Amino acid sequence: MDSWGGRRVVALAGGVGGARLADGLARLLPADRLTVIVNTGDDFELLGLSISPDLDTVLYTLAGVADPARGWGIEGDTFHCLEALRSLGDPSWFQIGDRDLATHLTRTQLLRAGMTLTQVSSELGRRLKVLPRVLPMSDDLLRTWVLTEEGPLPFQEYFVRRRCEPRVTGFRFEGEESAQPSPEALGALDTADVVIICPSNPLVSIDPILRLPGNQAKLANLPCVAVSPIVGGAAIKGPLSKMLLELGRASSALEIARHYQGLARGFVLDQVDAELSTQVEVLGMRAASFPTMMIEARRRARVAEQVLDFAESIL
Amino acid sequence: MDSWGGRRVVALAGGVGGARLADGLARLLPADRLTVIVNTGDDFELLGLSISPDLDTVLYTLAGVADPARGWGIEGDTFHCLEALRSLGDPSWFQIGDRDLATHLTRTQLLRAGMTLTQVSSELGRRLKVLPRVLPMSDDLLRTWVLTEEGPLPFQEYFVRRRCEPRVTGFRFEGEESAQPSPEALGALDTADVVIICPSNPLVSIDPILRLPGNQAKLANLPCVAVSPIVGGAAIKGPLSKMLLELGRASSALEIARHYQGLARGFVLDQVDAELSTQVEVLGMRAASFPTMMIEARRRARVAEQVLDFAESIL
Repeated sequence: MDSWGGRRVVALAGGVGGARLADGLARLLPADRLTVIVNTGDDFELLGLSISPDLDTVLYTLAGVADPARGWGIEGDTFHCLEALRSLGDPSWFQIGDRDLATHLTRTQLLRAGMTLTQVSSELGRRLKVLPRVLPMSDDLLRTWVLTEEGPLPFQEYFVRRRCEPRVTGFRFEGEESAQPSPEALGALDTADVVIICPSNPLVSIDPILRLPGNQAKLANLPCVAVSPIVGGAAIKGPLSKMLLELGRASSALEIARHYQGLARGFVLDQVDAELSTQVEVLGMRAASFPTMMIEARRRARVAEQVLDFAESIL
Repeated sequence: MDSWGGRRVVALAGGVGGARLADGLARLLPADRLTVIVNTGDDFELLGLSISPDLDTVLYTLAGVADPARGWGIEGDTFHCLEALRSLGDPSWFQIGDRDLATHLTRTQLLRAGMTLTQVSSELGRRLKVLPRVLPMSDDLLRTWVLTEEGPLPFQEYFVRRRCEPRVTGFRFEGEESAQPSPEALGALDTADVVIICPSNPLVSIDPILRLPGNQAKLANLPCVAVSPIVGGAAIKGPLSKMLLELGRASSALEIARHYQGLARGFVLDQVDAELSTQVEVLGMRAASFPTMMIEARRRARVAEQVLDFAESIL
């Protein structure tokens, strides 16, 4: 299975969980057979820098420099610039490491020089020696706002500054009337043989990608497999469980399967949720269950392999 | 002499040597009696950041955070962002420390928000708890180019990237047709009782200030004392001696006195150059000689005191 039959795989990813499965896929597939389309709804500007947290998490993870414990930033990074910013009275709530800052400086420079975010991401990937293509979902602005009982918050303000504390009532996607998927992302979907929806937060990482015009229609024509980010009733990382409960939904893998009903043909449950398989199949999807935890890097290729095998079985 | 008779002192300064004497003056004078006007001819843009090396050296020195050995940057700073930029293939010839970077990010942000460089410098001074006013010589662009046998080089390219290696044939001051001194700098000179030209490089640190329209005329009406940056035939720091020799001039304190002839009423020699006093006085200036080395911080107030006493004697 070293080339997985030469099939072209597109992975949709947000931050940590998505990056880990993308890394597993990258360890299995020839580089020219894998494209990762990454959520940019969390992107923001701080201190004049253009910051793309999910793109960075995917790039750093594929480059092997991601911090394994934190799930963001670069392993072993220091925070001396941030400390100095704090002592200068500047906004310092977003944890920018000193090495991480180099990526933001470079991205910002290249964007100002007129490159698209897609071109910048390819350039950063090249410089970080990341072989598969890592594409932003769009070169246009589509910003996720978290609607809360305290009012709407830009995603990073909710996520980092407010530590996901405000109660969530919904989401708004600023720019969704006009934002288009990038030509490169559309092209990758046009030539894909299978799409993997990584175990990212469906509400704030995958939905922004799916809301871009044309993406859902393209996915409907492709074998698409989603991997549950909820294991045993809780999210591996991040605020997904809390969000689901606050929205009056269940924090369960079955709820995630419902979310992707009509879109994903196959749904991967963690083995601890194997008993949900029947209920998933009632939704009209094929179900598979196996160990999906990928905190350890060496687990990633194995999970990716089982996901691809499952996808192969539903082609 | 703790208030030096309430007189208002303006110091003209470039980088390290100027910053050290300004620091000595700041240790002696009430904060509202001292204004430091700083060369901005070395300012440049890198990675989208607005960098003002001399302003930073003066601010860091007065704030007590300057690196005492290097003469630039912040003591104990790290260079992790720079290392990451280098590994990303970005320009990394200018040594930006991680903590130093916070200053550049803040300055760039405030300038983009519409503040003048003067306002930004006051704001940075306030945040760094620097009490005397530190003013850029101008809010306009006046950029020093070093003319060399290899062609013209922007100052920082010559100074840092090329390590002052190319032979100097002259200087060009881009923007000098239109650059004006800032209203704040003009106002400080209007109300000054004495002007101290710090031991900075006259060719590339002081001359840009003097070239701004009106400054020389104002200085001509004020008691002005210059302190020699050349001690025993060599510059304490930087390329001044090399520049003078390449221009066919002598690397001596007397040559510096000649440079300021007609402008400075008094000239301070280091004690090792005491025998030049008579020759300096032949130029029509009063001369004084005493130890002027200020590498150790505790020497600075003593040197400043002797400079002020000398200035007092020629009022």
